[in-house]
Amino acid sequence: MNLGLRNYEIDSYWEEKLTELANKYEDLSIIYLYGKNMLKLADVEILITSRFSLEDLKNANKLKILIIPFTGINSLPIEELKKKNIILVNTHAHASIVSERAFTLGLSLLGRVVELDNQLRKGFWIGYNQDSNWLSIRGLRCGIVGMGEIGLNLINYLSPFNNKIITLERYKYKLQNSSNIEFLDNISEVCKNSDIIFLSLPLTKETFNIIDKEILFKMQGKYLVNVGRGELIKEEDLYLALKKNILKGAALDVWYQYPQKNEKINFPSKYPFQELSNLLLSPHCSGNEINSKINVINDIVYNLNNYLSGKDLNNIVNFDKEY
Amino acid sequence: MNLGLRNYEIDSYWEEKLTELANKYEDLSIIYLYGKNMLKLADVEILITSRFSLEDLKNANKLKILIIPFTGINSLPIEELKKKNIILVNTHAHASIVSERAFTLGLSLLGRVVELDNQLRKGFWIGYNQDSNWLSIRGLRCGIVGMGEIGLNLINYLSPFNNKIITLERYKYKLQNSSNIEFLDNISEVCKNSDIIFLSLPLTKETFNIIDKEILFKMQGKYLVNVGRGELIKEEDLYLALKKNILKGAALDVWYQYPQKNEKINFPSKYPFQELSNLLLSPHCSGNEINSKINVINDIVYNLNNYLSGKDLNNIVNFDKEY
Repeated sequence: MNLGLRNYEIDSYWEEKLTELANKYEDLSIIYLYGKNMLKLADVEILITSRFSLEDLKNANKLKILIIPFTGINSLPIEELKKKNIILVNTHAHASIVSERAFTLGLSLLGRVVELDNQLRKGFWIGYNQDSNWLSIRGLRCGIVGMGEIGLNLINYLSPFNNKIITLERYKYKLQNSSNIEFLDNISEVCKNSDIIFLSLPLTKETFNIIDKEILFKMQGKYLVNVGRGELIKEEDLYLALKKNILKGAALDVWYQYPQKNEKINFPSKYPFQELSNLLLSPHCSGNEINSKINVINDIVYNLNNYLSGKDLNNIVNFDKEY
Repeated sequence: MNLGLRNYEIDSYWEEKLTELANKYEDLSIIYLYGKNMLKLADVEILITSRFSLEDLKNANKLKILIIPFTGINSLPIEELKKKNIILVNTHAHASIVSERAFTLGLSLLGRVVELDNQLRKGFWIGYNQDSNWLSIRGLRCGIVGMGEIGLNLINYLSPFNNKIITLERYKYKLQNSSNIEFLDNISEVCKNSDIIFLSLPLTKETFNIIDKEILFKMQGKYLVNVGRGELIKEEDLYLALKKNILKGAALDVWYQYPQKNEKINFPSKYPFQELSNLLLSPHCSGNEINSKINVINDIVYNLNNYLSGKDLNNIVNFDKEY
């Protein structure tokens, strides 16, 4: 059986771990796909890669299992993978890191960290006077929409701050043992009743633009942190809610436009979000923590090891649920 | 008995609370010291103020109790207050807020929050590629130097992140019930054995410049957060440790130079700290949280209420210990 690893994933730790696997399982060969080797996509039964196009799919005739080293599947050709009965496997090894990023962005936003640093660098002591100050997260009503590993970790990180956690009724079964949590029927109610919202949903047909002006324009004075996917929130409506100072502030790690090859300067939206002072911008780096790549590799190798020794694969994506 | 409140402290919540006190205690009068009323400093037995000079002391002939609405006493004429047997009272009501600021600055520093925001605003996705990424606080060895309320709160905020806490042997009596804490003999050892140091000592004769190049120049690759007082760390040595990239990064809420009357632009040091990219600058705002002023007022009024009804005053500063 041939296992392929794409050029932009290859590093020494991957090589070390995959060599261990190849030594353990005699019928397993590792193919590093770079340069002319890219042609060998046709020989690969298992592929580990962070990018996979329709063009790739046409070449990957033997592909049975596609493994991505992250969680969100929205950039992949889902329908076509489903038609060809290819098993898609993701990982949740980033979850504690992504929730730490969300937590850090929330605290930085409330703490006006970027603005106050930028001002003091110019010699202006904004925030030194009591009339222009920052907001503690202590005791705030924290809405969490998305109660996978990220949401559960967030509850843990917030635990010393005496917050009321507000989330959706449908996550109740996951939180039987937690206290001080309020369950509401829909996202609109959660946003209405929270001081700060943390958004960590997957992007699916159901969640696309699930937050729009109907919700945003009622969020006067509130804060929003998004580490899910940009398109969970309608682009124009979010821009306007910030521009009009309806939202008091937002922190975004996920965006509407991503870097293009051959472009030096890549703004993250067609709207000028970069000009907003009530916005904290983060370059979709929540999973790029220094040590987290190793956790991801260990998670995938553990999963492969199970599979190759005849056990079930973990983290198989449900194509109908899209996560 | 006359209780004075200085002009720069007066707000409606103070007025409300002091009026309640005056109604409760018949022999208590409140004097709001502003404009010509400043002359009435001579009539005041209890004074609440955040600034108090030698000149003030000369005028305040009847002063018995000086109350400051914060913790650090280093800006006051301590020796002269002691000579005149004036009781100095401070408050620790800010502590949970100051430690939240320290925690937020630490997470922001490790998360490169300011730098990544500033770059993305220009269209540069620094941190989006895995080769330039951020560091989680999870599992780091966290040194805490200063184990008053701020340090104790920090341990609480760090509790979900599975850190080894490292502190001084002399705080052991305060932490009998805590696990996973390592106690070391001196600050040099704490700095040597920690990945990130949180500094929250009071500034006294003993702690002035307690961290200098002897310690800093051995802190290769480490991080430092200071919410105590600037002069705990020797100014030039800190600048050089950052400039030479010995320290991986620092976040400072406390400084060496403060805004001067009539100056529009006030840099926080005689050294150009504002030019350093491995430094997070915060304008001594850790206590200036939106709601914390009310906590401070409540704490001081509670203390005054006790005193006026014949009980002991809390938070009397020990002039010999200087805190």
